[in-house]
Amino acid sequence: MKQKLKDLNKAFENKLRLGIMSALMVNDHLDFNSLKDLLGATDGNLASHLKTLEKEAYVSYSKEFLERKPNTKYSVTPAGRQAFLKHLKAIENLLK
Amino acid sequence: MKQKLKDLNKAFENKLRLGIMSALMVNDHLDFNSLKDLLGATDGNLASHLKTLEKEAYVSYSKEFLERKPNTKYSVTPAGRQAFLKHLKAIENLLK
Repeated sequence: MKQKLKDLNKAFENKLRLGIMSALMVNDHLDFNSLKDLLGATDGNLASHLKTLEKEAYVSYSKEFLERKPNTKYSVTPAGRQAFLKHLKAIENLLK
Repeated sequence: MKQKLKDLNKAFENKLRLGIMSALMVNDHLDFNSLKDLLGATDGNLASHLKTLEKEAYVSYSKEFLERKPNTKYSVTPAGRQAFLKHLKAIENLLK
Protein backbone atom coordinates (compact mmCIF):
# COMPACT_ATOMS: atom_id res chain seq x y z
CA MET A 1 0.00 0.00 0.00
CA LYS A 2 2.84 2.42 0.86
CA GLN A 3 4.43 1.68 -2.50
CA LYS A 4 1.12 2.21 -4.30
CA LEU A 5 0.77 5.61 -2.65
CA LYS A 6 4.30 6.50 -3.70
CA ASP A 7 3.36 5.77 -7.30
CA LEU A 8 0.77 8.54 -7.17
CA ASN A 9 2.18 11.70 -8.69
CA LYS A 10 1.78 14.89 -6.66
CA ALA A 11 1.77 16.91 -9.89
CA PHE A 12 -1.59 15.38 -10.77
CA GLU A 13 -3.33 15.62 -7.38
CA ASN A 14 -4.99 18.89 -8.27
CA LYS A 15 -8.31 18.61 -10.09
CA LEU A 16 -7.56 21.20 -12.75
CA ARG A 17 -4.17 19.63 -13.49
CA LEU A 18 -5.91 16.26 -13.90
CA GLY A 19 -8.23 18.01 -16.33
CA ILE A 20 -5.43 19.71 -18.30
CA MET A 21 -3.55 16.43 -18.67
CA SER A 22 -6.66 14.52 -19.71
CA ALA A 23 -7.56 17.18 -22.28
CA LEU A 24 -4.04 17.11 -23.72
CA MET A 25 -3.91 13.32 -23.76
CA VAL A 26 -6.85 13.17 -26.15
CA ASN A 27 -6.01 16.27 -28.21
CA ASP A 28 -2.75 16.73 -30.11
CA HIS A 29 -2.61 20.34 -28.94
CA LEU A 30 -4.95 22.97 -27.57
CA ASP A 31 -4.57 26.72 -27.28
CA PHE A 32 -5.11 28.61 -24.03
CA ASN A 33 -8.68 29.66 -24.73
CA SER A 34 -9.77 26.20 -25.84
CA LEU A 35 -8.35 24.72 -22.65
CA LYS A 36 -10.06 27.44 -20.65
CA ASP A 37 -13.45 26.75 -22.24
CA LEU A 38 -13.05 23.01 -22.07
CA LEU A 39 -12.16 23.01 -18.39
CA GLY A 40 -14.26 25.96 -17.25
CA ALA A 41 -11.21 27.52 -15.60
CA THR A 42 -10.27 31.14 -14.96
CA ASP A 43 -7.25 32.68 -16.75
CA GLY A 44 -5.16 32.94 -13.61
CA ASN A 45 -5.90 29.48 -12.35
CA LEU A 46 -5.28 27.83 -15.72
CA ALA A 47 -2.04 29.77 -16.30
CA SER A 48 -0.72 28.84 -12.88
CA HIS A 49 -1.43 25.13 -13.21
CA LEU A 50 -0.07 25.04 -16.77
CA LYS A 51 3.13 26.56 -15.43
CA THR A 52 3.43 23.85 -12.79
CA LEU A 53 3.04 21.17 -15.44
CA GLU A 54 5.58 22.94 -17.70
CA LYS A 55 8.11 23.02 -14.86
CA GLU A 56 7.75 19.27 -14.53
CA ALA A 57 8.24 19.04 -18.30
CA TYR A 58 4.90 17.27 -18.61
CA VAL A 59 3.43 19.98 -20.83
CA SER A 60 5.16 22.06 -23.50
CA TYR A 61 3.97 24.97 -25.60
CA SER A 62 4.76 26.68 -28.86
CA LYS A 63 3.89 30.20 -29.92
CA GLU A 64 2.74 31.13 -33.36
CA PHE A 65 0.95 34.06 -34.93
CA LEU A 66 -2.62 33.71 -36.03
CA GLU A 67 -3.88 36.70 -38.02
CA ARG A 68 -1.05 38.71 -36.45
CA LYS A 69 -2.12 37.73 -32.95
CA PRO A 70 0.10 35.51 -30.84
CA ASN A 71 -1.41 32.09 -30.21
CA THR A 72 0.06 29.60 -27.74
CA LYS A 73 -0.52 25.92 -28.30
CA TYR A 74 -0.06 23.45 -25.48
CA SER A 75 0.72 19.75 -25.80
CA VAL A 76 1.58 16.92 -23.51
CA THR A 77 5.23 15.77 -23.69
CA PRO A 78 6.16 12.09 -24.00
CA ALA A 79 7.36 12.22 -20.37
CA GLY A 80 4.03 13.77 -19.38
CA ARG A 81 2.06 11.08 -21.16
CA GLN A 82 4.07 8.35 -19.47
CA ALA A 83 3.83 9.95 -16.02
CA PHE A 84 0.10 10.53 -16.34
CA LEU A 85 -0.63 6.96 -17.39
CA LYS A 86 1.48 5.72 -14.47
CA HIS A 87 -0.53 7.93 -12.11
CA LEU A 88 -3.87 6.65 -13.41
CA LYS A 89 -2.63 3.09 -13.14
CA ALA A 90 -1.56 3.74 -9.54
CA ILE A 91 -5.06 4.98 -8.65
CA GLU A 92 -6.54 1.91 -10.29
CA ASN A 93 -4.15 -0.30 -8.28
CA LEU A 94 -5.06 1.27 -4.95
CA LEU A 95 -8.16 -0.87 -4.59
CA LYS A 96 -6.42 -4.09 -5.55
CA MET B 1 -15.21 17.81 -19.72
CA LYS B 2 -16.32 20.53 -17.26
CA GLN B 3 -18.97 18.16 -15.90
CA LYS B 4 -16.44 15.37 -15.58
CA LEU B 5 -14.15 17.65 -13.55
CA LYS B 6 -17.08 18.57 -11.31
CA ASP B 7 -17.63 14.89 -10.59
CA LEU B 8 -14.15 14.72 -9.03
CA ASN B 9 -14.41 15.04 -5.26
CA LYS B 10 -12.10 17.56 -3.60
CA ALA B 11 -12.12 15.45 -0.43
CA PHE B 12 -10.17 12.76 -2.28
CA GLU B 13 -7.61 14.94 -4.10
CA ASN B 14 -5.01 14.46 -1.41
CA LYS B 15 -2.82 11.39 -1.76
CA LEU B 16 -3.08 10.28 1.86
CA ARG B 17 -6.86 10.64 1.82
CA LEU B 18 -6.97 8.50 -1.32
CA GLY B 19 -4.92 5.97 0.59
CA ILE B 20 -7.11 6.06 3.71
CA MET B 21 -10.25 5.57 1.65
CA SER B 22 -8.72 2.73 -0.37
CA ALA B 23 -7.52 0.98 2.78
CA LEU B 24 -10.96 1.27 4.38
CA MET B 25 -12.74 0.14 1.23
CA VAL B 26 -10.97 -3.19 1.36
CA ASN B 27 -10.90 -3.62 5.18
CA ASP B 28 -14.03 -3.65 7.35
CA HIS B 29 -12.23 -1.50 9.90
CA LEU B 30 -8.69 -0.55 10.82
CA ASP B 31 -7.31 1.02 13.96
CA PHE B 32 -5.11 4.11 13.94
CA ASN B 33 -1.79 2.27 14.12
CA SER B 34 -2.69 -0.23 11.39
CA LEU B 35 -3.65 2.64 9.10
CA LYS B 36 -0.43 4.43 10.00
CA ASP B 37 1.70 1.40 9.19
CA LEU B 38 -0.21 0.57 6.06
CA LEU B 39 0.06 4.06 4.64
CA GLY B 40 3.46 5.02 6.00
CA ALA B 41 2.00 8.22 7.46
CA THR B 42 2.96 10.29 10.49
CA ASP B 43 0.55 10.56 13.46
CA GLY B 44 -0.23 14.21 12.83
CA ASN B 45 -0.77 13.89 9.13
CA LEU B 46 -2.96 10.81 9.44
CA ALA B 47 -5.05 12.33 12.26
CA SER B 48 -5.61 15.52 10.32
CA HIS B 49 -6.72 13.78 7.11
CA LEU B 50 -8.92 11.33 9.04
CA LYS B 51 -10.61 14.34 10.63
CA THR B 52 -11.31 15.87 7.22
CA LEU B 53 -12.90 12.63 6.05
CA GLU B 54 -14.93 12.37 9.29
CA LYS B 55 -16.25 15.91 8.80
CA GLU B 56 -17.49 14.87 5.35
CA ALA B 57 -19.08 11.82 7.03
CA TYR B 58 -17.08 9.55 4.72
CA VAL B 59 -15.27 7.87 7.61
CA SER B 60 -16.58 7.01 11.07
CA TYR B 61 -14.88 5.62 14.15
CA SER B 62 -15.73 3.73 17.31
CA LYS B 63 -13.72 3.56 20.50
CA GLU B 64 -13.30 0.43 22.52
CA PHE B 65 -10.95 -0.77 25.20
CA LEU B 66 -8.36 -3.38 24.39
CA GLU B 67 -6.53 -4.68 27.46
CA ARG B 68 -7.63 -1.50 29.24
CA LYS B 69 -6.14 0.69 26.53
CA PRO B 70 -8.43 2.76 24.31
CA ASN B 71 -8.45 1.58 20.72
CA THR B 72 -10.12 3.54 17.91
CA LYS B 73 -11.40 1.67 14.89
CA TYR B 74 -12.07 3.49 11.66
CA SER B 75 -14.45 2.42 8.91
CA VAL B 76 -15.78 3.87 5.71
CA THR B 77 -19.45 4.95 5.86
CA PRO B 78 -21.95 3.95 3.16
CA ALA B 79 -21.89 7.59 1.96
CA GLY B 80 -18.09 7.45 1.86
CA ARG B 81 -18.09 4.26 -0.14
CA GLN B 82 -20.53 5.72 -2.65
CA ALA B 83 -18.64 9.03 -2.94
CA PHE B 84 -15.29 7.31 -3.37
CA LEU B 85 -16.54 4.99 -6.11
CA LYS B 86 -18.06 8.00 -7.88
CA HIS B 87 -14.70 9.80 -7.67
CA LEU B 88 -12.78 6.84 -9.10
CA LYS B 89 -15.34 6.52 -11.88
CA ALA B 90 -14.93 10.24 -12.66
CA ILE B 91 -11.17 9.83 -13.00
CA GLU B 92 -11.70 6.86 -15.28
CA ASN B 93 -14.14 8.90 -17.37
CA LEU B 94 -11.73 11.82 -17.82
CA LEU B 95 -9.93 10.12 -20.66
CA LYS B 96 -13.11 9.07 -22.46
